Amino acid sequence: MSKRILLIVAYDGTNYHGWQLQPNGITIESELNKQISELTGENIQVIGASRTDAGVHALGNVAVFDTNSPIPGNKFTYALNCRLPQDIKIQKSMEVSSDFHPRKCSSRKTYEYRITCAPLPIPTKRLYSYYIYHEPNIEIMQEAATLFIGEHDFKSFCAVASQAETTVRTIYLLQVEKEGNDIVIRVAGSGFLYNMVRIIAGTLLEVGLERRSKEQIAAALVGKDRKLAGPTAPANGLTLVSYEFL
Amino acid sequence: MSKRILLIVAYDGTNYHGWQLQPNGITIESELNKQISELTGENIQVIGASRTDAGVHALGNVAVFDTNSPIPGNKFTYALNCRLPQDIKIQKSMEVSSDFHPRKCSSRKTYEYRITCAPLPIPTKRLYSYYIYHEPNIEIMQEAATLFIGEHDFKSFCAVASQAETTVRTIYLLQVEKEGNDIVIRVAGSGFLYNMVRIIAGTLLEVGLERRSKEQIAAALVGKDRKLAGPTAPANGLTLVSYEFL
Repeated sequence: MSKRILLIVAYDGTNYHGWQLQPNGITIESELNKQISELTGENIQVIGASRTDAGVHALGNVAVFDTNSPIPGNKFTYALNCRLPQDIKIQKSMEVSSDFHPRKCSSRKTYEYRITCAPLPIPTKRLYSYYIYHEPNIEIMQEAATLFIGEHDFKSFCAVASQAETTVRTIYLLQVEKEGNDIVIRVAGSGFLYNMVRIIAGTLLEVGLERRSKEQIAAALVGKDRKLAGPTAPANGLTLVSYEFL
Repeated sequence: MSKRILLIVAYDGTNYHGWQLQPNGITIESELNKQISELTGENIQVIGASRTDAGVHALGNVAVFDTNSPIPGNKFTYALNCRLPQDIKIQKSMEVSSDFHPRKCSSRKTYEYRITCAPLPIPTKRLYSYYIYHEPNIEIMQEAATLFIGEHDFKSFCAVASQAETTVRTIYLLQVEKEGNDIVIRVAGSGFLYNMVRIIAGTLLEVGLERRSKEQIAAALVGKDRKLAGPTAPANGLTLVSYEFL
C-alpha cells in the first residue's frame, strides 16, 4: 500500500542548477529522484516545497514522494544519506497524510540573506555570502525593513518572468542584524514570489548605501512595477532556512 | 633594482593539494608563482610562512617574493586579485626589507579549528567545519585547554613524519568557545609543528567526549610520544587566521 513520505532536505546549491528538473544539468530534484528511485526500485518523482534557484542553499527545504517501499518513514533519512552526495543531506523523514502537498497548504517560510562587508573578498565566505566593499548603514536598513511587514502586493518585488496567480503575500518578520562583518537579513512569510527575497535584499542594501530612500520603498510597495524596486541580489547569499506547516 | 614584496593571502583550501609545490596537483604556492610570474614577466618563486595541508584554509597566510617589477608594493593586491581564482585572494601587499624571511623571524600565529555538532551533517558547513554527532562537554575541554598554554615539548602532538629540529614550542592562548552549534578552538603560539593544531583539536575533542582524561593530556605533554595524544582532527575544520611578526 502506497504511503507519502516527507523529507526535510538541506543542501549546498553551489554545484546544482537549482531545485527544479532541467533538460541539461543536475538539480537537487533530479538527484533526489535518482537516489530514492534506486533505493526503492520504483520510479520516484518528488514534489518540492520551494524550487530554489541555482546557487541558493537550504537548511530545510521540503519534498514529498509516494512509495510502496517497506522502509519505515523515519528510516529514509539514514538510507538516503548513505547514497546522497555530501552537498545534499536529508535532515528528517516521516510518513505524512497521502493528501499532504507542500505547495498547497499554509506554511511559514524563513529565508536568510547574508552579506559580507570587507575591504577585500574572503575566499572561505564566497559561496554563502554576497561580498560588498562599502559598508551600508544598518540602522537605515532596519527602519526600511519594517515597511515590508504585513500583507502587501509584492508585484514590484517579483521577477517579471513570474507566473504567480496573485502577487499578494504576507511578511511576518523582516530583521536586519549584524554578525561580525556580516549583515544577515532574515525574513519569514506566508510565501515568496520568484526572486522576491533577493529583490528585497538588493533593495534594502541600496537603502543602506543611501542610493535609495525609504520613501521609494513605500512607493514600490504600492506601484506594482518591478522597475520601482532595487536589483536582485546574487543567489549565493540566500539560504532557505525552514518551513513550518500551519 | 630588486625589492621584496610581502603578501597576506586568504584561501579556501578545498580544491588545492595544500600550500607547498607538489609534483602532481595544483597548490596555493604553484598558483601564486604562476600568477605573479605572468604579471611581472619574471620567474617568481614565493616563500610561504605556513605550508598548510590539503583542505586547510587561511584568512591570513603570508608569502614573500623578490621582483624587479615597477609595480608599487601596495598595488600587487589589486593586480593579483584580478588574475587569481575566487578561492585565493590577496588581502594586503607591501614592500618589506630584502632580508625579511617569514619562517625565520619571530611571529605569533593564530589558528582556528571549527567543529559542528548536530544530529545530521549540514551541507553548507561541510567544507569549513568538522562534523560530529555526539555533543562534547565544553567545560571539560576548556579546563583541559589550559594545560597546553606555555612552553612545552610538543613531540607527542606532532606527526611522526615531522623533520623539525626541535619540538619545543610556546602556546600563548588556547580558547574553546561555543558559537551556535559550533565549537571553535582558537590557538595562538610561537609556531606549530606538523599537524600540531589538528592533533591538539582531536585530543581536546576526546577529552570533551570523556574518552580521555585531563591527566592523559598532562602525561602526553611530558611523554614525547605521538601515541600518547589523540587522533589528528580532519583538515577541513582548520583555518590559519593570522600572522603577527614580532
